Amino acid sequence: MAKELTSRSENYSQWYNDLVLKADLAESSAVRGCMVIKPYGYAIWEKIQAELDRMFKETGHQNAYFPLFIPKSFLSKEAEHVEGFAKECAVVTHHRLKADPNGNGLIVDPDAKLEEELIVRPTSETIIWSTFKNWIQSYRDLPLLINQWANVVRWEMRTRLFLRTAEFLWQEGHTAHATREEAVEEARKMLEIYADFAERYMAMPVLKGVKSANERFAGALDTYCIEALMQDGKALQAGTSHFLGQNFAKAFDVTFVDKTNKIDYVWATSWGVSTRLMGALIMTHSDDNGLVLPPNLAPFQVVIVPIYKNDEQLAAISEKVNEITPKLKALGISVKFDNNDNKKPGWKFAEYELKGVPVRLAMGARDLENGTVEIARRDTLTKETVAIEGVETYINQLLKDIQANIFQKAFDFRTSVTRDVNSYDEFKIEIEKGGFLMCHWDGTPETEEKIKEDTKATIRCIPLEGDKTPGVCMVTGKPSAQRVVFARAY
Amino acid sequence: MAKELTSRSENYSQWYNDLVLKADLAESSAVRGCMVIKPYGYAIWEKIQAELDRMFKETGHQNAYFPLFIPKSFLSKEAEHVEGFAKECAVVTHHRLKADPNGNGLIVDPDAKLEEELIVRPTSETIIWSTFKNWIQSYRDLPLLINQWANVVRWEMRTRLFLRTAEFLWQEGHTAHATREEAVEEARKMLEIYADFAERYMAMPVLKGVKSANERFAGALDTYCIEALMQDGKALQAGTSHFLGQNFAKAFDVTFVDKTNKIDYVWATSWGVSTRLMGALIMTHSDDNGLVLPPNLAPFQVVIVPIYKNDEQLAAISEKVNEITPKLKALGISVKFDNNDNKKPGWKFAEYELKGVPVRLAMGARDLENGTVEIARRDTLTKETVAIEGVETYINQLLKDIQANIFQKAFDFRTSVTRDVNSYDEFKIEIEKGGFLMCHWDGTPETEEKIKEDTKATIRCIPLEGDKTPGVCMVTGKPSAQRVVFARAY
Repeated sequence: MAKELTSRSENYSQWYNDLVLKADLAESSAVRGCMVIKPYGYAIWEKIQAELDRMFKETGHQNAYFPLFIPKSFLSKEAEHVEGFAKECAVVTHHRLKADPNGNGLIVDPDAKLEEELIVRPTSETIIWSTFKNWIQSYRDLPLLINQWANVVRWEMRTRLFLRTAEFLWQEGHTAHATREEAVEEARKMLEIYADFAERYMAMPVLKGVKSANERFAGALDTYCIEALMQDGKALQAGTSHFLGQNFAKAFDVTFVDKTNKIDYVWATSWGVSTRLMGALIMTHSDDNGLVLPPNLAPFQVVIVPIYKNDEQLAAISEKVNEITPKLKALGISVKFDNNDNKKPGWKFAEYELKGVPVRLAMGARDLENGTVEIARRDTLTKETVAIEGVETYINQLLKDIQANIFQKAFDFRTSVTRDVNSYDEFKIEIEKGGFLMCHWDGTPETEEKIKEDTKATIRCIPLEGDKTPGVCMVTGKPSAQRVVFARAY
Repeated sequence: MAKELTSRSENYSQWYNDLVLKADLAESSAVRGCMVIKPYGYAIWEKIQAELDRMFKETGHQNAYFPLFIPKSFLSKEAEHVEGFAKECAVVTHHRLKADPNGNGLIVDPDAKLEEELIVRPTSETIIWSTFKNWIQSYRDLPLLINQWANVVRWEMRTRLFLRTAEFLWQEGHTAHATREEAVEEARKMLEIYADFAERYMAMPVLKGVKSANERFAGALDTYCIEALMQDGKALQAGTSHFLGQNFAKAFDVTFVDKTNKIDYVWATSWGVSTRLMGALIMTHSDDNGLVLPPNLAPFQVVIVPIYKNDEQLAAISEKVNEITPKLKALGISVKFDNNDNKKPGWKFAEYELKGVPVRLAMGARDLENGTVEIARRDTLTKETVAIEGVETYINQLLKDIQANIFQKAFDFRTSVTRDVNSYDEFKIEIEKGGFLMCHWDGTPETEEKIKEDTKATIRCIPLEGDKTPGVCMVTGKPSAQRVVFARAY
């Protein structure tokens, strides 16, 4: 089973694809570029959703739901937005099929052409701001803090499961504020929530920063982002939070009366993370044996595999399992007891390794006699035999250790491939090795564009934290305010 | 505020629409037939989702996600399905927009025409069974118990918020089984879950039955349903569960090897409930003052309104509220303390009445002196003054009483308008008064069709429980196996 995985060193991209398929996370569908998220993959996404949703609500946001379709004319209303978003998308032109008069199934009914085409939302700023216009009159209606869990579609030519698909699932926050300062604060706050979630739940270290103009969201004044680093040394943008200024308020004429009775346009933010996080999660921790899941997001954290020769032994083991399980559950630990008789223990071991279950317990007749159980941890692939008595406390601590360990491992890896680079010649050599390169840049789109053309590297972000020493651009020698992060990216 | 609602007796349909808008549940969007679900409405939907999702998982179902789009050719594969479903739907024909060379915004790029049109899913049997083909080989892969939470689109000419919209949210279960018996059992089990949910959470009594051939889902052998009765005497189909036989397995060539090594087609079910339940919930309980929510689905069950003349009084009341609130929360009761200084108590009373909050507490300076609080219940609009000491126990019981009371009220109403009708002349008179008419019918589509044409009434279901005495059809005089339920319906 696990043997069928291509190794990372052999072909990282193939390893990723193998893993997504064989661990039953997702697969391609009959519709080009659209994926099927399988139950095991979806269970991880549900965990991600639940934690984020809780964090959004704790910070005062409310969920709502807006239409799937956007009238074509809406997309042209915000000048920059249309450039970035309105191109590769699914266009609905008709609203009826009819039987083919020649008897070949169904055809589009030419009489059912829409007056105005509808676009399947690639993102919802336009439809939401057209709605906000009716919701906002006065400063008393602000701030308006809305989130939506939804599917979106962006037509993509080259797709990869989770990382880049035509349809994907995401959440998109859309907020409205009375002042610039408050909107910037909101955008920064949501960035902090994303970073906190990535680090504490996904066990994935992220850099917090702001995008250069080239990489900014179409229609934003500033795009804040969290950037993660995958094991192959490529960066992955894991979440973005945009300060939109008054652009969408102006495009949709959303004004409010402030406390001094003055009328002004509303200030906006939007922010989102998507099923792309699944790709980031997989690539941050997994190994050649399969998936490695952080305990905080694993659909089940512990699997118990009985090892028995006959029904009597299975009965005795089951009895012991029935004692342990409620104790684990009382500590909030999720457990699966796999007593499926069709599969051998060895097969099950490989299967749960492939699926990244953090802790595996194996219990046989001799364990029962000795009052012990064998515990294997997925992250280090090590085993120990421990006493059954009090095993729930042991496992509770072990899950915390695993969560901390895989974070630290990813953090150490990132540290090991993050380095300062001071000349463009050196940069061209170093970029081939992957990782984050911290470089001085003159702040111009032209220089960034040249670097991208020469090396396929982009500015992942201008870091918000860390070293702020000025210097000179590695390409042009012009002044640079601080080092920025370059990498090749997903 | 509440005064602005049209009364039910004046214009029921207008009352409903007013209520949905004024209680901030939903509104129409800029896209024809598509609604915006507002935060308060969405919070109720989230409660509905959470309970149903728990019930599905407890019965062994897993969530997954399938593509939004269905290739046009898939819809023609199941002969009956295409008749019922493939007509009024959103058709994607292109995948790109481009700038209008004449400078008028965006146009559809004629070079980006899809080879095969894609249909926005009206329901997912076809795309899911095309996927199941790869998931099922042997009886060991069965049963396969999958559910999906998703948006679907059915082009509708006449739309009403929640009740009939072009886009709506729903869950659709899709299961695969080795035998006919097991699939029928699954379809019946899910019907029971829907009925249980409707009665225990929505406090909405439902009849469980099976549809006549005319009303059956396109592609099903049997459609089981729950039917509710609205206050205007019209029926509302609140959920359906279909036994699909081997129709979709045959259409998509999904076979399996059984225990005796024989190859057979797989047996199927599908079942769903949608945001239509929101309409049912609203119309079952609400009154001329606004929404009446069952405590089991209210976004918050208790609202506390302080009545004060100065900051000192508010501080004293807040202190007391801070004592009560944790005690209520410890009992699992959700509470909102509305200390908004911009609104008067009277305004708040009307607002929470309109929004259907089950229990309202009002607390003033005199209450503090006396150690009392005023409690108003939304269902009966009655008030009582009770001791603050132990008020959490009182409220806990009160919420149970309200849940039981509104169910009983709806049940009694249904009973009062359900009657046996024995002649077609009588039927034509009685149907004008609304309600469920229990009548003998000869079992033919022709007779049902005639009744529908004459009176706009349809067979809501053939009840699974209750009186099974045979008789003669009220229209044709031919034999009838049992009385069936006629009504006009939403």
